[in-house]
Amino acid sequence: MASIPVDQDNYLEQRVSLINADRELRRDWSNLQTRSVLEKEADEIVRSIRAEEAASVWKEEHPDIPHPFPGMEFLTGKKIIEKTRIFEILSQMPKGTLLHAHIGAMVDTRILLDLALQQPAIHVRVAEVLTIANIKSIVPEFLPLPMGSYNLTGPGITASDYIPNTWVHIARARELFDASFGGSEGFDEWVINAMTLRPDEAYGTYNTALKIWEKFESTFSVSCVLVHFLPIFKQYLRLFLLSSVDDGIFYMEPRIDFFVADCMRGADGELNVTHRDIVLLFGEAIREVKEELEKDGRGDKFLGARIIYTTVKVVAPKDLYRYLDDCIALKKEFPHLIAGYDLVGHENVLHPLIDYIEPFLYFRKRQVEEGIEIPFLFHAGETLGDGDATDSNVYDAILLCTKRIGHGFSLVKHPKLMQLCRERGILLEVCPISNEVLRLTSSMSMHPLPILLNNGVPVALSSDGPSVFGNMGLTYDFFQVLVASEVSGLSTLGVLARDSIEFSMMTVEEKKRALLVWEEEWRIFLEQIVTRYKE
Amino acid sequence: MASIPVDQDNYLEQRVSLINADRELRRDWSNLQTRSVLEKEADEIVRSIRAEEAASVWKEEHPDIPHPFPGMEFLTGKKIIEKTRIFEILSQMPKGTLLHAHIGAMVDTRILLDLALQQPAIHVRVAEVLTIANIKSIVPEFLPLPMGSYNLTGPGITASDYIPNTWVHIARARELFDASFGGSEGFDEWVINAMTLRPDEAYGTYNTALKIWEKFESTFSVSCVLVHFLPIFKQYLRLFLLSSVDDGIFYMEPRIDFFVADCMRGADGELNVTHRDIVLLFGEAIREVKEELEKDGRGDKFLGARIIYTTVKVVAPKDLYRYLDDCIALKKEFPHLIAGYDLVGHENVLHPLIDYIEPFLYFRKRQVEEGIEIPFLFHAGETLGDGDATDSNVYDAILLCTKRIGHGFSLVKHPKLMQLCRERGILLEVCPISNEVLRLTSSMSMHPLPILLNNGVPVALSSDGPSVFGNMGLTYDFFQVLVASEVSGLSTLGVLARDSIEFSMMTVEEKKRALLVWEEEWRIFLEQIVTRYKE
Repeated sequence: MASIPVDQDNYLEQRVSLINADRELRRDWSNLQTRSVLEKEADEIVRSIRAEEAASVWKEEHPDIPHPFPGMEFLTGKKIIEKTRIFEILSQMPKGTLLHAHIGAMVDTRILLDLALQQPAIHVRVAEVLTIANIKSIVPEFLPLPMGSYNLTGPGITASDYIPNTWVHIARARELFDASFGGSEGFDEWVINAMTLRPDEAYGTYNTALKIWEKFESTFSVSCVLVHFLPIFKQYLRLFLLSSVDDGIFYMEPRIDFFVADCMRGADGELNVTHRDIVLLFGEAIREVKEELEKDGRGDKFLGARIIYTTVKVVAPKDLYRYLDDCIALKKEFPHLIAGYDLVGHENVLHPLIDYIEPFLYFRKRQVEEGIEIPFLFHAGETLGDGDATDSNVYDAILLCTKRIGHGFSLVKHPKLMQLCRERGILLEVCPISNEVLRLTSSMSMHPLPILLNNGVPVALSSDGPSVFGNMGLTYDFFQVLVASEVSGLSTLGVLARDSIEFSMMTVEEKKRALLVWEEEWRIFLEQIVTRYKE
Repeated sequence: MASIPVDQDNYLEQRVSLINADRELRRDWSNLQTRSVLEKEADEIVRSIRAEEAASVWKEEHPDIPHPFPGMEFLTGKKIIEKTRIFEILSQMPKGTLLHAHIGAMVDTRILLDLALQQPAIHVRVAEVLTIANIKSIVPEFLPLPMGSYNLTGPGITASDYIPNTWVHIARARELFDASFGGSEGFDEWVINAMTLRPDEAYGTYNTALKIWEKFESTFSVSCVLVHFLPIFKQYLRLFLLSSVDDGIFYMEPRIDFFVADCMRGADGELNVTHRDIVLLFGEAIREVKEELEKDGRGDKFLGARIIYTTVKVVAPKDLYRYLDDCIALKKEFPHLIAGYDLVGHENVLHPLIDYIEPFLYFRKRQVEEGIEIPFLFHAGETLGDGDATDSNVYDAILLCTKRIGHGFSLVKHPKLMQLCRERGILLEVCPISNEVLRLTSSMSMHPLPILLNNGVPVALSSDGPSVFGNMGLTYDFFQVLVASEVSGLSTLGVLARDSIEFSMMTVEEKKRALLVWEEEWRIFLEQIVTRYKE
C-alpha cells in the first residue's frame, strides 16, 4: 500500500524518482545522462528561446490569425513559424534521413509548374469553360501529347468560344488566361491551389479526417500527370534530392508508387516507360546529384537514396501478385536501390492489410526461394478509429514483421503493440504536419507523439507529402514537435535524427559511416547555436 | 526474433492471440468472457443499431452542420444525438454514480433562471445601458438585496434613462426588457447565453484550450450569485438530486467549492451562511429527496450523496490551512456527508499542486491525530501540456495518494502512472463532453479514453459542468463514448457504471447494497433492449 511521504524533503525525492521512472523508457533518456556539455548548453539555449518566443512571437495579435499558439494549425501558423529564431535554428539542423515521403508530392508546386511550362508536350483542359462562378470547383487536367497533336492555336480555356475538353498547350493556356481571372498569375494560382491544401479547406470546407482526403486525393490527381512525364520526372527527382540535402537531410527513402507509375509517359507522350526505366532513372539521379555536390565540396551532405516499392490499396488482392513479382525482379537487379515494400492510399476506405495476407505470404516464400529480403515498411493506423479495420492494420503490420510503420497514429491505443515496437525495434515514421492537416489531430498539442516517446517506441519524423501541405524539408515538422512539448528538447530531436539513420534500410556499413558523418555535423550545429544564440 | 506466420490459418490464430494480448488489461475483458447470454445479446443489438445509425442518421445532410459524424463536436451535434435510438436506449441505462460534478453547474440554466425570477430579493444590473451593439459582450450581474433595498420602480436595464450599475429587480428587468431586444424572451436568452457555452464560442471565438476558459469562467461568475443564494440553493440541490435520479444516477459526489461558498447569502441578502449551514442543508436535501422518492415507490433509485470539499487554486498556500481545518471539522461532525478533498480552477494558470505540499502534509498529519480519513480526490492533468507544471500535477496527485483523479486528461502520456493507477486502483473521472467543449480534444474520436481503457485504468464517466455544456445527466457522455469506438460496447458502459460504484466514497456496506441494486436494474435494462429493439 502506497503512503504519502512524511516530509517535504522526502516528498521531493520521491517526486524525482517517480518522474524518472515515468520517463526511463524514452529513447532520449540515456542520451540525457551521457550527452556532452556542449549539447546540454545548446539544448538549454534552445529551451530558453522557445520559452521566450512562446511569450512574445506567439502572443502577438494577428488580424488574420485569431488564436496563435506554438504547435497551432500549420497552414495558418506557418508565417509565424517562419519568423521565429527556433525555426532559423532548426533549418540548420542535420536531420539525418527522410523515411516517409511520397514521390508524387516532394517538389514545391511552383517549381513543378515551372517545369511543366517549359515542356512543349504538356497540355491542359477543363470540362467546362472557366467562369468566376466555377473556377473554385474546376481543376485543371494535364496530359503530355504526342508531337503531332500539339495545340498551339485556338482559344484559351477561359475564352467564351473554348470547346470544353479541348487540349490547349499549357504555356498558351497560361498566356491567354483572362485578365478577369488574374491573367497569367491567376492561372498559376489556380493550378497551384489545385495541387495544395489551403487553410480554409483543411480547417473549413473539409474539416474532418474523412472529408479532407477528397481534396488531398484531388491534389495528387492534378499533379500526378506532370510528375509522371519522363522529361519532368528526371529533373523532379534531382530537385527533390537537392532540396532535401539543402534542408540537412543526407539520405532518403521515398515511396514510389508503381501502380501510379503505370501512367508514366515518355517524351513522346506515349505510355512506354517501364518500372525498370524508373529505377534506372532514380539511380542516375542519385549519381548526378552526388557528382554535383562533390564538385561543390559538399559530397558528404548526400549519402544516397533508396526506393520503397509501393502499390495502392485499391489493387484487388488477386491482382497484387504481378506487382510483388515485379518488386522481386527489381530488387534482384537493383539490390542497392530497393529498400522495401509498402501499400499506400486512404486507409479508411481502401483494402485493409488483412485482405492481402495470401499474396504477402506468397511474397515472403518467393523471397526465401530467391535468397533476397525485401522488408515490409507498412503504412498502418493512419486513423482515428478505435478497433475498426483501419486501426486493426497495426496488428497485421506487426504480425507481418514490418520493420517500420508509416504513421501508426493509432498505435498509442495499443499497449501490447507499443511494447513489441520497443522490444523488436520497429520504428514509427511519424508525420506531425501531415497528421494535423489531414485532421487526425487539431494541433500539435493534441498529437500522440509524446505518448510514443514516453513509451520508448523508436520514432523518426517525416514530411509525407510536403508539396501538398507546404512543409518542404523536415524543418517545419521538427519545429512543430519541439514547440509543443516541455519534455522534448533539442537533444530529443537529435535522438529522432539518429534513429532515422539507425532504422533506415542502409547497409550496416553505410549506417556506420552515416552516423559518423551525422555526429560531426551535429557537433558543428551545436557549436553554432552556442556561438550565435548565447545571450 | 519474430517471424511471419507460415500459412493463413496459422496467421489468423496468431492474430487473435495478439489482439487478445493487446486488450487483456481492459477492465471489461473478464466481463466479456463471463457476461450473461442476455447481456451479450443486448450488446450485439446496440452494436448493430450503432452501425446502422452511423450510416443513416449521421450521413444525412444538415444545412447548419457541415460535417456530422458520430462523436462530433457536442454543441453542434446535440440535436442529431437526440434523434438516435442509441440515445433513447442510453437514457434508460442505470448509470451508477456521478463522481465529477461541480455544484455550481448542475441545474439547467432555464430552471435556475426561473428559480431566480421567483425571488423578490434578486436584482440585476449592468455596467452600461444595453444596446444592440454591446449586448453580446455585456453580462448580467446579479445580487440578492436586503429587503429595504429592493428596487421595484424606475427604468429597466435597456431604457435610455437607466443609470449604469443601478440594481433593478430581476422580474421587473425582464418585464421591461425592450421589445427591440426580444422583450422578456430576449432577456431570458441573454441571461441563459451568459451562463452557457454556445457552439460559435467553443468552436469559433474561443477555439483553444486556453481561450475557452475566459467564457467558461464568465458563465460561473454570472450564475454563481444565483446558485449561492440560500433560498435558491435549497431548491437547487433538490432539483440536482432529482434530475440525476431521473437520468438513472443513484448516488452523487458533487464538488462544493467552499471558497466560493463564502459568498453565499441568506434570505435577507446578508453574508451570514456558514459552511456548516451548507452541509446541513445538503443533508436535508438528501433526506427530502429520499422521502419524496419513497413516497413514489422509487426509494431504491436514490442511495444518497456526499460532498467533495473543494477550494480553488487561487488560494495562496499559506491561506489554505483554514480551509483544511474547516474540512476536518466538517468531516468530524458529518462523517457520512464529506467524501474527500480537492482543489479546483483553471489548472493551466493557477497554482500547481506542488505549491501546496506543506499544507497537504499538515492536513494528513492532522487527520491522523483526529483519527479520521479525508481522501484526496484531486483534479490533475486537465491540459494539453507535455511536461509543464499542469501536466506534472498528475505526479503530485499520485504521490499524495489521491484515490481518484479528476480528468487526468494527460495521464495517457505517462506509462508509469497508468501502471500505478491500474495497480493501486486509482480511478479516473473522465468527462468526455467537458474535455471536448473546453477544447482539449476536437471530437470524441480524438479523445484519449480508449488509451486509458486499453491500459486497464479504472474509469468512470462524468458530466463536470453540465448546465454550462448542456450535457445534463450522464446520457450524453455515455453516448459520445459509445459511438466513437468499435472496441467499446454496451458491456463496456456497464463496466464503467459498475466502477463508478466501486470507486465511490460510499462505505463498504453501502457499496455492496448499491451493486446489488445496480445489477438488478442492469438486468431489467438489458431485457428491455432485447424486448424493444430486437429486429
